[in-house]
Parts: sequence; C-alpha cells; structure tokens
Amino acid sequence: MSGMPHTLVQVPPGVQCFVGREVQRRRAIEERVLRVFEGWDYEEIIPPLFDYAEVFASEALQPKTYSFVGREGSLLALRPDFTSLLAKIAAGRLAARPAPIRLYYSGEVLRYEPPKAGRQSELYQMGLEHLGGDARAADVEVLAIAAECLQALGVAGFVLAVGHVGVFGALVEAARLDPQQVARLRARVESKDARGAREVLATSGAPAAIAEALQRLPALAGPPAVLEQATEVLAACEPARTAVLELRGVVQALLAAGLEAHLAVDLGEVRGLDYYTGLVFQAYGQGLGFDVGGGGRYDTLLARFGRPMPAVGFMLGLDRVALLLERQGAPEPESPAPARPVTQKDLGKALVDARRLRAQGARVRFGNGEAP
Amino acid sequence: MSGMPHTLVQVPPGVQCFVGREVQRRRAIEERVLRVFEGWDYEEIIPPLFDYAEVFASEALQPKTYSFVGREGSLLALRPDFTSLLAKIAAGRLAARPAPIRLYYSGEVLRYEPPKAGRQSELYQMGLEHLGGDARAADVEVLAIAAECLQALGVAGFVLAVGHVGVFGALVEAARLDPQQVARLRARVESKDARGAREVLATSGAPAAIAEALQRLPALAGPPAVLEQATEVLAACEPARTAVLELRGVVQALLAAGLEAHLAVDLGEVRGLDYYTGLVFQAYGQGLGFDVGGGGRYDTLLARFGRPMPAVGFMLGLDRVALLLERQGAPEPESPAPARPVTQKDLGKALVDARRLRAQGARVRFGNGEAP
Repeated sequence: MSGMPHTLVQVPPGVQCFVGREVQRRRAIEERVLRVFEGWDYEEIIPPLFDYAEVFASEALQPKTYSFVGREGSLLALRPDFTSLLAKIAAGRLAARPAPIRLYYSGEVLRYEPPKAGRQSELYQMGLEHLGGDARAADVEVLAIAAECLQALGVAGFVLAVGHVGVFGALVEAARLDPQQVARLRARVESKDARGAREVLATSGAPAAIAEALQRLPALAGPPAVLEQATEVLAACEPARTAVLELRGVVQALLAAGLEAHLAVDLGEVRGLDYYTGLVFQAYGQGLGFDVGGGGRYDTLLARFGRPMPAVGFMLGLDRVALLLERQGAPEPESPAPARPVTQKDLGKALVDARRLRAQGARVRFGNGEAP
Repeated sequence: MSGMPHTLVQVPPGVQCFVGREVQRRRAIEERVLRVFEGWDYEEIIPPLFDYAEVFASEALQPKTYSFVGREGSLLALRPDFTSLLAKIAAGRLAARPAPIRLYYSGEVLRYEPPKAGRQSELYQMGLEHLGGDARAADVEVLAIAAECLQALGVAGFVLAVGHVGVFGALVEAARLDPQQVARLRARVESKDARGAREVLATSGAPAAIAEALQRLPALAGPPAVLEQATEVLAACEPARTAVLELRGVVQALLAAGLEAHLAVDLGEVRGLDYYTGLVFQAYGQGLGFDVGGGGRYDTLLARFGRPMPAVGFMLGLDRVALLLERQGAPEPESPAPARPVTQKDLGKALVDARRLRAQGARVRFGNGEAP
C-alpha cells in the first residue's frame, strides 16, 4: 500500500474539494440563502447522509444513487436528493407535528456520474420543503422565497420559469397514449420540436383537439400573458385548463408583488423529477446556460411514508450559484483582516502575546522566531 | 416498495437527524469553534466525503470504514476521519504551497458501529491540522487553540490531558518486547494496572531498569509537575527521557500563558490513533466521563503521500461537545425573533405585505387567511 506513495494523491472522478477563498465564497452564498429561509420561518434540519435505499423515491435518480450493503445486510444508499428524506422524516420522526411543516436544509447529495462526463458526484444543495397547509398559498410562498434568495445573492437578470406538470399529464391522458408514445412525445416537447411532436401524434389516434393542444405546447412559453392564451388552447381538455388556472392564480399573486420582470411561463417544460404533481419551476440567471435550481409540488410522495399530505419545495445548487456569480463578476466577499505575526524564540512569551492579542479580537499567526 | 409504507419510516441504526432547536445549538457551537480557528489564521477546507479506501491510513479505523466499489471498479470509502484526507490534499492538490500549512474543517465522518452498541455511525467533527513548520511551536499553538475553543464554548472545568507516545514506544523498544507482549502491556498500562503490567514484564526478559520504568508509567499522571518526576523515572531510557523533555517544553509555554488549571499530564495514556508519533492529548470537561476531542502529532503520515513533513492536529466532536454543554446546563443560544403572521385570503395582498415586512428585516409566516 505504501509502495508507490505518489499514486495515493490521485483523486476519484467527480469528488469535490474546496480550500480557503473558495470556501469563503461558498459560505457567503450559503449564509445569504439560509438567512432568507429563516426569514420565512423555516426550521433547519440536518438529515442523515444515508438511509435505506428504498426511501429514495425518484426513479430518475435511482441509476445515479450510490448504494452499499450495510453490515447487518440491508441495502443502504447515500442520499441523491433531500426531498424524499425530508418527506420520510415528516411522516416518521415528526409525525406528531401538525401541518404545515416548514423545513430547510443545506448539505451534500451524492450522485454517480460516469467518470468522463465531467460532472460532479458531490453536489451541495440549499433548499426547503413546505409540507401540508394550503397548496396555493404554499406555491406562492415558495416562489417568493426563491425570488428573494436570488435577489439577496445579487443575481443579475434572474428568471423563474414556471410550468405545471398537470398540463402535459392531462393532455396525454386524454390522448390515451401508451407509455412509449408518451416518452417519445415528451422528448419532442422538451426539445420545443412542434413538428416532431406532430409526427408522434399523427399515428396516435388522439382526438384532434387534444393532438392540436399537445402540438402547441412547446409554443406556450414566454411572459405571464401566455397563461391567458393557454386557457384558450386547452379549452378541449378541462383538467389541463384547470392546471393552467391553478398556475395563473399563483402567478397573479407574484405579479401583484412586483415580480413581473422575473417571471416566465413555460408549459412545454415537462422535465423535472418524476414525483412532481403540479407546479414546477426552474431558476435562471443571466450568463449561465442552465438552471441554478428549481422545485415543484409533490402531492403524492408523503403517502408513500404513511402520512398523505400535499407538499412543495425548491432548492438552489450551491455549485451552480457560485459559478453563476463568478460569470456575472459579482463582488467578492470581504477578506478577513490579515493576521498579526506573533513570533518569538521563547514559546512561552510568544503564547502570552498571542493570547493577549486574541483576547483583543485580533487574528494571529503563531511562530517561534522564524518567519511563521 | 409501496406495499407497507409504514416500514419506510424506520431508520437505519446509527444515523443522526437534527431539527430546529437542536440544529441551532449545534450551529452555535460550530460558530464559536470555527471563529477561534479563523482567529489563529487557519484556512477552511471542504474535502471530499469519500476517497479511495487506501487513502485512509489508520489500521484502527479500517474495520469501522464504510467502503463500496465505485462503478469504475475501484474500492472507495466514506471518510472515517479527516486527518489522512487532509494529509493527502496537502501533498497533492496543495503540493506547491510552502509549509507551514494551516487548515481547518467542520463536517461529518462515517464509521460503522455494530447496530446494538448504541453508538452513532455519523459523527460531526470540527478540527484543524498544522502541517510543516517548527514542531514545538506547532504543538504549543494547537494546544493553545484547543484551550481557547473550550473557553469560548464556556466549558466548565475543562482539562487538556497531554502525553507523548514516544515514552511508551521507547520503553517497549528498549525492553525488546514482541508485538504480543506490547499489546498485552499496552492494555495493562491503559487500565492503569501497575500490577498487571508487572506480571507481563516479569517473564519478558526486559532489563530491570526499563521494566521498572514501564511499571511506573501508569502512576506518571497528574499535574504538570509529574514531568519532573518522569525525567528521573525514565533516566535509564534516553529516548523516553527526550520525549518527556519535548513534552515539558510544550507544557512550560502553556503554563507561562496561565493555563495551569487546565493542564494534566498522563504518560500512561497510550491509546490514540496508530499514526501518532509524539504529543498526544485529550480534552475533557466536568460532568462527562469521556473526552470531547483530542489530537496529536503525526510526523510520518505525510511521507505516505510523497511529501514528508511533520504535522500536528486536533479535533472536537460536535456531538460530544453538545452533550457536555447540555450536562453542564450551559446557557441556550438565543432564539430567533418570533415570526409575524401574514395571512390574507387574497394571496397577492398577502405577498405584498410579506415582502414589505421582509424588506424591513422581519421574519414572516405566510398564510392564506387561515391560521398559518
């Protein structure tokens, strides 16, 4: 094991390591975001780093989950996200607590990424979950908090792009598509490829008005006024229209509070974790080609753990926020005051000096008479 | 998987979960300790959570390490401690940085504990490593920082019990004991069992003066004056005496700085991680029957990673510090100001109100006209 020490400094793919100034930048971001979460009366939770593998509900995340067999024989998994874990805790350990429950977290998730993809296996997330309570008020609250976080971070030109998984969901149900057709259609809609969507639908036997609405989904993206247009486009599918009206109620509250410049609607946004059931959204900032976080409503997840309850949450990726702020040339956090060297051959005297300076609040750099 | 949802709220043995007030207590402890680390000019590092299994050097920790096979086939391990990981980073990623390097960390380590032992598998540690530089000055510095942390935390009656692994090490070498004899003797000395130690030594063929010194080791514990007595007891073993003189130099500096009431010497303390080579110490507070942290010098560990360099470090266990402060009835951290309820049927109006209050720095609790 000690034969070739130099190989021991190699680093496994995807792990992260931050030192000094990088940590200060990350701490400054975390502090601002968590202060906003506290400001909306969320309680911090530090959940376990691993749990039984079956706790983690997202099928999309399953192939990315690091799992291992515990020594008592059970299959354990390092958390690939926080939402399932917090849902479990709300249903278990916090079972006696009345809804709504407001929880926030800041920590690491672990996801297997293929070595050559250049992606990190260690990701840091800051997020919150609003469990129970009135769903529309909770949706408004969570979006308002997301906006306040991005404002507090000084992100220039941020946009929250909101959608509703119930729109696509209701349309494909009305179209009576089989799972393969849904998957192909979803891929076309995700790519904003109306023509491709039309091709999938042409042979599907879907009712004409429904097929027409599905083809127009990719175009239902833009400023909040898109929602008015959507209620017409979706007239043939009542559940899809209801989803849009739900979303419109939420958006109107945000508009009343002056967030117009930061809101976009995208009904063609059909990605997102598989446990989402309603509102979904992603957060963007100028100069970064991908989102820095997002969230959504997941009204069926808690039933899995025996406490049926509607819920909504969101998270910001610390790594992506740091990258965005760097790209935007955001001001650096203040450096700590330089340390005062305390350096004497007599270590007793040096320590007396150092302790005196420390008691006065100074930072010290301790030495033995040589340059420390 | 969803057949019996209630089983999904069971928790694997040894994992930890903290909510609300518990988190505030832990955050308050962490903040005080890290402020002290910063005050002595240490830089924060956030190292990876896992690495190649062979990086983790301690044989004592190996049976407690959670390991798993990465998807590219390599054996990975969740960090069971920070010291090996930081040594590797200092030798690898920070190779160009001149010594001394001062680094601190605060995070989780993972250790397998048998399910029924009632011990945690997730432990939180706050610690630092001083790599390179003058060894005696570094020893003094690290002990002084440990003392300042315990003072800043308000720990009543804290004691740093210092020893030196070179004393026992030099004596057993001079006694020419085989590894089995060393293990038996170590167990006797650890239990402060002078009579048992005598029995092990009786049949060992060790020189009489060396055997005599080894038997007296368990009694070389008490106030710093013990070190004067030790130089006489160890007169027959020059390397052991040198170790004591080294320790005395460090202790004298701490005495000069007024730490007498907080110092104890224990030359019979022969536990500690297997990579320690010199000074070792443990931190205690009144009312808890075990240490809350400790550290020591490890002058050979960095050579494993190709950058030979003396080093010393220490850590405080956040879980144990929290327990100690609870036992001592330490004052609770301040609660945040209560949140102002903002509750209106019209969610737009509610949000306008909430944003105005937030801009004034208030904490809010958002609702829709019902009790939020």
